[in-house]
Amino acid sequence: MTTATRWAGAAALALLATSLPAQTLDDLKRDSATPGDVLTYGMGYNNQRYSPLKQINTKNAAKLRPVWAYSLNNPQGQESQPIVHNGVMYVTTHNTTVAIDPATGKQIWKQEIELPQDVFKMACCGILNRGAAIYDGKLFRSTLDAHVVAMDAKTGKQLWKSKAADYQNGQAMTSAPLIANGVVLTGIAGGEYGTRGFIDGWDPATGKQLWRFYTTAAPDQKGGDTWPGDTHLKGGAPTWLTGAYDPELDLVYWGTGNGGPWNPNARQGDNLYIASVVAIRPKTGELVWHYQFSPNDPYDYDATEVGMLVDMKIGGKDRKVLAQANRNGFFYVLDRANGELLAANPYVKVNWADRIDLKTGRPVHSEIDKKARAGEDVEIFPSVVGGKNWTPMSWNPATGLAYANTLNMSWPYQLAKPEYKKGEWYLGVNFRGVNMPKNEPHGYLSAIDPMTGKSKWQMPWPAQPSMAGTLSTAGGLVFTGAATGEFIAVDANNGKKLYEFQTSSGIIGLPVTFEHKGKQYVSIVSGAGGVWALLGDERMANVPAGGSVWTFALE
Amino acid sequence: MTTATRWAGAAALALLATSLPAQTLDDLKRDSATPGDVLTYGMGYNNQRYSPLKQINTKNAAKLRPVWAYSLNNPQGQESQPIVHNGVMYVTTHNTTVAIDPATGKQIWKQEIELPQDVFKMACCGILNRGAAIYDGKLFRSTLDAHVVAMDAKTGKQLWKSKAADYQNGQAMTSAPLIANGVVLTGIAGGEYGTRGFIDGWDPATGKQLWRFYTTAAPDQKGGDTWPGDTHLKGGAPTWLTGAYDPELDLVYWGTGNGGPWNPNARQGDNLYIASVVAIRPKTGELVWHYQFSPNDPYDYDATEVGMLVDMKIGGKDRKVLAQANRNGFFYVLDRANGELLAANPYVKVNWADRIDLKTGRPVHSEIDKKARAGEDVEIFPSVVGGKNWTPMSWNPATGLAYANTLNMSWPYQLAKPEYKKGEWYLGVNFRGVNMPKNEPHGYLSAIDPMTGKSKWQMPWPAQPSMAGTLSTAGGLVFTGAATGEFIAVDANNGKKLYEFQTSSGIIGLPVTFEHKGKQYVSIVSGAGGVWALLGDERMANVPAGGSVWTFALE
Repeated sequence: MTTATRWAGAAALALLATSLPAQTLDDLKRDSATPGDVLTYGMGYNNQRYSPLKQINTKNAAKLRPVWAYSLNNPQGQESQPIVHNGVMYVTTHNTTVAIDPATGKQIWKQEIELPQDVFKMACCGILNRGAAIYDGKLFRSTLDAHVVAMDAKTGKQLWKSKAADYQNGQAMTSAPLIANGVVLTGIAGGEYGTRGFIDGWDPATGKQLWRFYTTAAPDQKGGDTWPGDTHLKGGAPTWLTGAYDPELDLVYWGTGNGGPWNPNARQGDNLYIASVVAIRPKTGELVWHYQFSPNDPYDYDATEVGMLVDMKIGGKDRKVLAQANRNGFFYVLDRANGELLAANPYVKVNWADRIDLKTGRPVHSEIDKKARAGEDVEIFPSVVGGKNWTPMSWNPATGLAYANTLNMSWPYQLAKPEYKKGEWYLGVNFRGVNMPKNEPHGYLSAIDPMTGKSKWQMPWPAQPSMAGTLSTAGGLVFTGAATGEFIAVDANNGKKLYEFQTSSGIIGLPVTFEHKGKQYVSIVSGAGGVWALLGDERMANVPAGGSVWTFALE
Repeated sequence: MTTATRWAGAAALALLATSLPAQTLDDLKRDSATPGDVLTYGMGYNNQRYSPLKQINTKNAAKLRPVWAYSLNNPQGQESQPIVHNGVMYVTTHNTTVAIDPATGKQIWKQEIELPQDVFKMACCGILNRGAAIYDGKLFRSTLDAHVVAMDAKTGKQLWKSKAADYQNGQAMTSAPLIANGVVLTGIAGGEYGTRGFIDGWDPATGKQLWRFYTTAAPDQKGGDTWPGDTHLKGGAPTWLTGAYDPELDLVYWGTGNGGPWNPNARQGDNLYIASVVAIRPKTGELVWHYQFSPNDPYDYDATEVGMLVDMKIGGKDRKVLAQANRNGFFYVLDRANGELLAANPYVKVNWADRIDLKTGRPVHSEIDKKARAGEDVEIFPSVVGGKNWTPMSWNPATGLAYANTLNMSWPYQLAKPEYKKGEWYLGVNFRGVNMPKNEPHGYLSAIDPMTGKSKWQMPWPAQPSMAGTLSTAGGLVFTGAATGEFIAVDANNGKKLYEFQTSSGIIGLPVTFEHKGKQYVSIVSGAGGVWALLGDERMANVPAGGSVWTFALE
């Protein structure tokens, strides 16, 4: 990098920003094949987080180094996936959106998001934002107080702001919108607050709401008979992460979360569509098919991290699948055209179900699950934070493996009487956190075979489990980060650590890679917080908070 | 660095911390010659900020890279000089003290400083702290609410806390204490608030105040006749930076700041000891000699950055000198045994004085200075922030040059009527900020010959002037940082930039270097703020705030 480049003034950067061409739907469809940018959450509609870039590879990864850092000046947990388009990187925090030069780390613009003060006591599990969407010259993001905002990508100037829900009921928005077939799709958080989940479709030009799909079925709707009385109204099924999209099938796949309250006896029945994936039409919100991972789920086994769209050979046949590492401990492979279950095997220790029945698609509940539902005090694997938490895994087509940070924890589980109070947790469970097994690692970076759930290799996290996302590349690498702040590159074939760097805080974010002026960069946000800061208290005592963006390249 | 080292757990770090031997006065005296540690503010009592280390040198500086960063989780300006002792680095912010493993960046402990909320509206020029002192197993630091605190260096546990002044009068403490001859010496800020400056001596074991030297002389004291009436009581002369110490002469050199109010007509006379250096006995606070740089100073020309103790040949004779680049634009060389003026030449553009008379030691005031004092609206060079601001320069004995970030600015100056109100600025000047010359750089990294004030070379800062400190090494390097965040290494002989890295925020701090397990490291804090954040508003709009510690080494 030349000195001239590094010292380019703000004026030059502003000029650069004004020459941005608009992003088309075709650009978005091609995202996973165009490594010069990162246009979608998931690094492609297929959510594979795989890049064909191989300038950085297993042979030279040890020569990685930071090329710049950028302070987000935000003490909260950082979980934003950077978007990169035409020489500008966009990153979000709960109260800012910033545009940065990806080569130099220089800020191009920064816009504040105004939030009401009382939103902070409400938003479950972290004051944060997970990233923006880009389309047609606009950036789209959600806000903690449950609004969707469109901004001019050149300046960050707000173009429209639409309200999705009342944050005072406990509903919040933290995830990146999905642009599919010209519609802005967003989900909603708040499954612990006795709310009703939904997915919204918005007009990108005006912010007008085009449709809403409620993820708990009303009595007069298909699936409505799975809820007693009006329990669906506080039935949860939040939709707090971003979906995937298959443009050929024109289906958006969106994951849903736990039922409300956690106590399943308060809502006898399957409770559609909690803990499910729903396949919907982006233009209309019409439900085409669904698959429910955890019917009547008692364990907060959110299926919000929807997984990856992969084309793979199964039994000699080419299949278009949806592959999901569910919080409930099973790794699912579904036919994404119709929701047919093709495989479901445990990828971590599981004791709430003995297996998933391939014919019925339903779990075969274990004895301990029955005790739990009867009110006994039992230890359940996986824990409330799941076999893996919310951050996405990635796919490497060369290895045919899914790379995920998996968790080795249980939780003490006992039912209690649920009591609804507006804006407060509505659990019906005597919640006492998680248990860490003694003399075992509490988490691994795992290279999982989707069809068996088995790991080809596992790299144990020595200090604390990681809740960070992963990135895979054609360079044979997996990138991820540690709760204690190390950014690492690992050999996708054997889990050998090839590079690490201690960033300024803990990592719970998602790496991306892109090519800019012939050079491959890898970027990730650092900033401890999120759910692990709530659960990992003492273990996190020596990891300082403080958000920043980090970018690495070969020297 | 091995993986095992990097992943050392908190337990191992705690063990390391418990094996700290105490620091003796001899250790402190030897600091500049023991490159394995940084025990004093100034990297040695002589304040030269010079290290004999040369593992990093002009030949390999391009191969520097960050080895870790540590988030201070503090949005204020960062101006703390790290202290390094026995494998532990200590860094301060306005509200925390942290101990870090210097090889890995892992936090060993962190302690909060509790501060009253109303202190923040009071403290002039930045919510910050400039570093700790270490002695006899204890860390010493000052607080914004004007207390001195001693902590156990192993744990950060507070051992004593002593009040120096009432912060509600506008007095604050931001600088690192100086340990000299077994006494903890501290200064005080607040010269803009109609306060009276002083230097205190404290017992390191108990926190008992041993003595106080007021820097404005009372009528019955030597110099008392330089103040009309009781004007000395609001006369300023703050002492807000750390002094230097010559153990052989047993003299502490401490710089003093502006008179109060700025308007000099409100305090006709020289106003001893404003804008001076005082040489005092550390055991008693007894004044041995003084030199006043700017008698009756109207221009806020603080002499608080006391300069360096250098042994140099002048006219063929070995002289022990104090070399100071004064805010007033002159570079002074004094005999540090007796205060005799040996040289005083401008190192930046100056128009308030034509020259300094070597015989009288007094400035020869210019016509424009006379107009200013008569109340005319004039443009004065240097500006209110001086020919250089508060951060220290460094000395390289091989080149015989002083390396300083110098400023090319003026200010519009016109007297006004001073009005005292407790806890508010007491200026008596129509303050309108600073002027930046057009079509010229506004600051340089300058390599200054102390005897002539002339620069052997100057590296212009392209975007914004730097207010960061400098570090010199036997490797022929000068290290410093940019307001826009670049950490840089420069060839001491010619000013050629050999390395730069974009840290996460702006740099206004001070680099240090040390050797740890055979490897040379360079550390600096990043975090925009301080006085430049107040003056550089628009220019700083695209530099994010956010504090962190950065450590660099060869790969």
